[in-house]
Amino acid sequence: MNYASESLKKHHEWRGKIEMISRVPINTREDLSLAYTPGVAAPCLEIQKDVRKSYQLTRRANTVAIVTDGTAVLGLGDIGAEAAMPVMEGKAVLFKELADIDAIPLCLRTKDVAEIVKTISLLAGSFGGINIEDISAPRCFEIERRLKEVCDIPIFHDDQHGTAIVVLSALINALRITKKNLADITVVINGAGAAGIATARLLLDYGVKKMLVCDRQGILNAEQSLNDEQTKLASDRHGSLADALIGADVFIGLSAPNCVTKEMVASMNKDPIVFALANPTPEIMPDLAKAGGAAIVGTGRSDFPNQINNALAFPGVFRGALDVFAPDITEKMKIAAAQAIANHVKDHELTADFIMPNPLDKTLAYAVAKAVGGQND
Amino acid sequence: MNYASESLKKHHEWRGKIEMISRVPINTREDLSLAYTPGVAAPCLEIQKDVRKSYQLTRRANTVAIVTDGTAVLGLGDIGAEAAMPVMEGKAVLFKELADIDAIPLCLRTKDVAEIVKTISLLAGSFGGINIEDISAPRCFEIERRLKEVCDIPIFHDDQHGTAIVVLSALINALRITKKNLADITVVINGAGAAGIATARLLLDYGVKKMLVCDRQGILNAEQSLNDEQTKLASDRHGSLADALIGADVFIGLSAPNCVTKEMVASMNKDPIVFALANPTPEIMPDLAKAGGAAIVGTGRSDFPNQINNALAFPGVFRGALDVFAPDITEKMKIAAAQAIANHVKDHELTADFIMPNPLDKTLAYAVAKAVGGQND
Repeated sequence: MNYASESLKKHHEWRGKIEMISRVPINTREDLSLAYTPGVAAPCLEIQKDVRKSYQLTRRANTVAIVTDGTAVLGLGDIGAEAAMPVMEGKAVLFKELADIDAIPLCLRTKDVAEIVKTISLLAGSFGGINIEDISAPRCFEIERRLKEVCDIPIFHDDQHGTAIVVLSALINALRITKKNLADITVVINGAGAAGIATARLLLDYGVKKMLVCDRQGILNAEQSLNDEQTKLASDRHGSLADALIGADVFIGLSAPNCVTKEMVASMNKDPIVFALANPTPEIMPDLAKAGGAAIVGTGRSDFPNQINNALAFPGVFRGALDVFAPDITEKMKIAAAQAIANHVKDHELTADFIMPNPLDKTLAYAVAKAVGGQND
Repeated sequence: MNYASESLKKHHEWRGKIEMISRVPINTREDLSLAYTPGVAAPCLEIQKDVRKSYQLTRRANTVAIVTDGTAVLGLGDIGAEAAMPVMEGKAVLFKELADIDAIPLCLRTKDVAEIVKTISLLAGSFGGINIEDISAPRCFEIERRLKEVCDIPIFHDDQHGTAIVVLSALINALRITKKNLADITVVINGAGAAGIATARLLLDYGVKKMLVCDRQGILNAEQSLNDEQTKLASDRHGSLADALIGADVFIGLSAPNCVTKEMVASMNKDPIVFALANPTPEIMPDLAKAGGAAIVGTGRSDFPNQINNALAFPGVFRGALDVFAPDITEKMKIAAAQAIANHVKDHELTADFIMPNPLDKTLAYAVAKAVGGQND
């Protein structure tokens, strides 16, 4: 199937992929008097007395905003607020279908960090959480950090943390199969954007000891011109991605098509794990990685085994945070989410070609939610 | 029925009066590939090339934001963003049930005019129109004026224009019954807030020649300390509301309970028309107004005849504006809406106790929409 032309045709038919509906009947004047004036004054006054009541008396407890500035949409780059909407609507569809969350896409006509932070902070009283989406690095780091300071609801940049969670879950299951030891492995991450950096941080938090992060110029090192987040991950080693991979156990690509060769995979340690997540064309095609000796290969694509897809994480992460009224999504919650995703693949199901749950498995988000909620302090 | 306690109970049961749903099936990986990645890139690129395509390829063309700062909610005053949400959700229910519009309530945590304008302007690319709601006067005038300058979609402050439209429609039908002539009548408006001022302006635009606008101190006159909008409506007469009403044909109250007496109605011209719209307690109760000689009495309440209710106007006004992709809601559109509402009461139905359509008549919004859309240039 030609997804581009078929999707365009479908979008013309759909005329929007989401829809706001009423949960209450409006058939009589009495219905009106209860859902609207004069009756509605009573719940308003309850919330005025205790703002936490907004979680009981409105839809807030089940509602998340998906906010973007359209600067880093899919692989398309900076396409603007309006053009980002089809992706945000798609995300809202997944929120609903996978975790029964009401998600409201808001595409902002600004790229200014202060304006984005201000806008979201002013809207925070209408939502139970904020999913930041497709905002370019390094702006996304500052936006998230400042929002976490000023907002009293969970702030989650999915491109960073959703990716980090699913990569960690894939790593957990790859280690289950290859019997490698977390503390012993060397992980090479290629890509030092939002996803690469967040993944590196989560893996280090989880207990990975040896890691090299690379960008287009090779191993990140402090002599380069790096942003703050990259500097924290810089190495004292110099070298190319090919150099970094020699003897490494795990390759995680959050970078660009075809930058890894069969020979580079062959230079890795025994039973190498290769997650080539560039989309739609991975860093190395699965058959080539296998030919180089990869024990396990994952990609971002649905047409190969082991799809490492954010949709496995964000619905359940938000479901869990909303269910326990969490003020934030913490590192512990992210790790719990990754473990829950990994554990959703049972021992008897787990094979080198089946390390990730099916993203359409509608029980997954609730298992993730339970794990995330359990970490709320 | 005790609406307050019953409504509170219902709000606890409902846990939100609105809900975001998916319009597309997500059952197979193919569904995912069309609604989300990789297929979704195609509609994104179409919109990037021509931003008007956002009206065909996303839900924008059917989506309105309801935005408030919570400063003038019902009769409750400044209750804050979160406490305003039950009203905004109620409004979203009416948008959906009466005109099939997807309305997204956004309650802002600021009262700063510049911040409110900035926030809404940054969000405008996600919506087909903006309904401003329950923002206190005179701030609402400046907010609306500035938004109309910077936004390319319809901006409509319902407390002003929705009220003005329904009052004009009530007046049109009251004149049909009393056979009074628009150019001859004297109209007294009590209340110089958002609704009073907008109503005065629309009635003058429609052709009313003689009008006195009063506030708590009586007839507005230029020697008072008035805001810009009030100054334009000031008279060179001095006097109380009682003075203004002597010999007047029409009283329109958008003010406070019980400020009009039977004697004041009796002092009006023959067959006086009394619209006492303070809620829930009108400026004069209908039986008292009738005892004073009123030919026609309307209130804002559903338990008396002739309910003059914004819900008769805003769903159809927005339906019409969205249907024709109107960049603005003009004076001509508002007058067309008022005429359509009035004409929805057929000659054989029209009586002194039936001048307004039933707000639950689900054909009304589409009749209003047709009239509004017909005025788009």
